[in-house]
Amino acid sequence: MIFGAVLAGGTGSRMKSAPLPKQFLLLGDKPIILCTLTQFLRNKRFDAVYIAVNGEWLNYFQSLLTQYGVSDPRLRIVAGGSDRNETLMNVIRDIKNTFGEREEDVIITHDAVRPFVSQRLIDQNIDAVLQQVACDTAIPAVDTILSSQDGETVSSIPPRRELFQSQTPQSFPLWQLWELYKALSPQQKAELTDACKIFVLAGKPVRIIQGDVYNLKITTDGDYQIAQAICQSGLWQE
Amino acid sequence: MIFGAVLAGGTGSRMKSAPLPKQFLLLGDKPIILCTLTQFLRNKRFDAVYIAVNGEWLNYFQSLLTQYGVSDPRLRIVAGGSDRNETLMNVIRDIKNTFGEREEDVIITHDAVRPFVSQRLIDQNIDAVLQQVACDTAIPAVDTILSSQDGETVSSIPPRRELFQSQTPQSFPLWQLWELYKALSPQQKAELTDACKIFVLAGKPVRIIQGDVYNLKITTDGDYQIAQAICQSGLWQE
Repeated sequence: MIFGAVLAGGTGSRMKSAPLPKQFLLLGDKPIILCTLTQFLRNKRFDAVYIAVNGEWLNYFQSLLTQYGVSDPRLRIVAGGSDRNETLMNVIRDIKNTFGEREEDVIITHDAVRPFVSQRLIDQNIDAVLQQVACDTAIPAVDTILSSQDGETVSSIPPRRELFQSQTPQSFPLWQLWELYKALSPQQKAELTDACKIFVLAGKPVRIIQGDVYNLKITTDGDYQIAQAICQSGLWQE
Repeated sequence: MIFGAVLAGGTGSRMKSAPLPKQFLLLGDKPIILCTLTQFLRNKRFDAVYIAVNGEWLNYFQSLLTQYGVSDPRLRIVAGGSDRNETLMNVIRDIKNTFGEREEDVIITHDAVRPFVSQRLIDQNIDAVLQQVACDTAIPAVDTILSSQDGETVSSIPPRRELFQSQTPQSFPLWQLWELYKALSPQQKAELTDACKIFVLAGKPVRIIQGDVYNLKITTDGDYQIAQAICQSGLWQE
C-alpha cells in the first residue's frame, strides 16, 4: 500500500511573532496545514493519508477540518511524538494496527509547512520508492555552503557541486524504516533527526529526487512573508 | 580606504527565459543591478563604489545609468574578467592605479543579483573587515544539506548545526586578498571560485556575518519571480 504522511508535530518555536504554531497561519484563504494536506489528498494513488498533529492542537485541528470542509475517507489523524521521528513512528504504529504489514508498503512523508508541494514531486517520490529504495527530495545547493564548528569562523568550504539542499517529501520502504529505527540506541535516536540519515548510516542507498525552488519550508517570519507574497502574486498554482 | 564592489561580470546563463542577463531585468521600476548599486551608494562610509560589468554590456549599462539618473562621484565602472575572481582582480588593479595602496584598505564585495542587501549587512561587513579579517555573510542552513558524489544517491549528511548558507557581501583586507590570489597556480585559480575559500585554504580566519533571509540571489526564473513578488508586496523596504 502507498501511505502519505504530512507531519505537523511541532509547535513552531522558531517563529517569534506568531500567535499560533506556524502550520496554522493563513496562506491565502486557508491555513498552511490544510494547503499542504489538500495537495496530498488530491493524489489518488495514496491508499491512506496521515496527518500528525501535536497533541495540544488536535482539537483545534479537528475544528479546522470542519470549518474548511476538508474530508476524505482516506484521511487519518494521529498525535505527534516527542520529535520528528517519534511522530513518524506514531504514524507507522497506526498503520500496523489498522492496515497490517505488507512487505511492499511505502510511505511518502512531508513537512506540513511546505505547502507548495507539486503533484510532480509527490508522483516522482511514489514512483521511486515503489522500487523499494529510500528517497529524499533535494535541489542543487544554490549558495556556497560553509562549515563552521563554532558558528563564528569558517572551518571549511566543501565543493558546492557535491551539495544538495534537502526538502521533502522523503519516502521510505515502510518496514525497512521501522526496523532500522527500532535498532537504534536512545542516543542515536536523539541524533538522527533526519530519517534519511538513518538509511545512509545503515549503508542503504538514498535516491535524490529533483526538488523545486518553490517548495520552501515556512520556518521563520521572513519565510512566511515570502510564502504569502508567492501566494498573492498567483505565481504558484496547482 | 573602504571600497565597495558590486560584481556583475556574468551573462546569466542559468536563466533560460531571460532576453537580457538577469542583472538587467526589472525589479519594480528599475533594473536589478541598479537596485543593488543604489544600496551600496547609499552607504556614505564607502570612499569609492566599483561596479564590474561584462565588457559586452558596458555601453548598455552606461545608458541605464543615464536613463535612471544614477550618478555619484564615488562610482567607478570596470569591465568584468573571465570569472568572478578575475573580475575582482580587475577592480583591485583599478584601485591600485587610481588610489594607490594603503595597508588598511578593505573591500566589501557583493553579487549584483542580490538586490535586497540591507544597510545593516553592509555596515556589519565594514565594521568587521576593518579589523583586518576576511568576512563572509551567511545564514544557518535551513534545509538539511546532502552530500552526493554523483548527484543521484546521497553519500553523506553532515550535521546541520555546523552548516551555513553563504550569501554576500564578502569582505577582505584588500592587499591580503591580492597577495593570496597572485600566489595561486592557474589550476588553483580555476578551482577557487569563492574568494573566501582562498583565505580558508591559506589558514586565515574568515568571520561569519549573520545574513538575512531576504538577501536572496536571483539566479533562476523561479528566484526572479519570488524577488518580484517580494518587491510588489512591499515586504522589503529600505
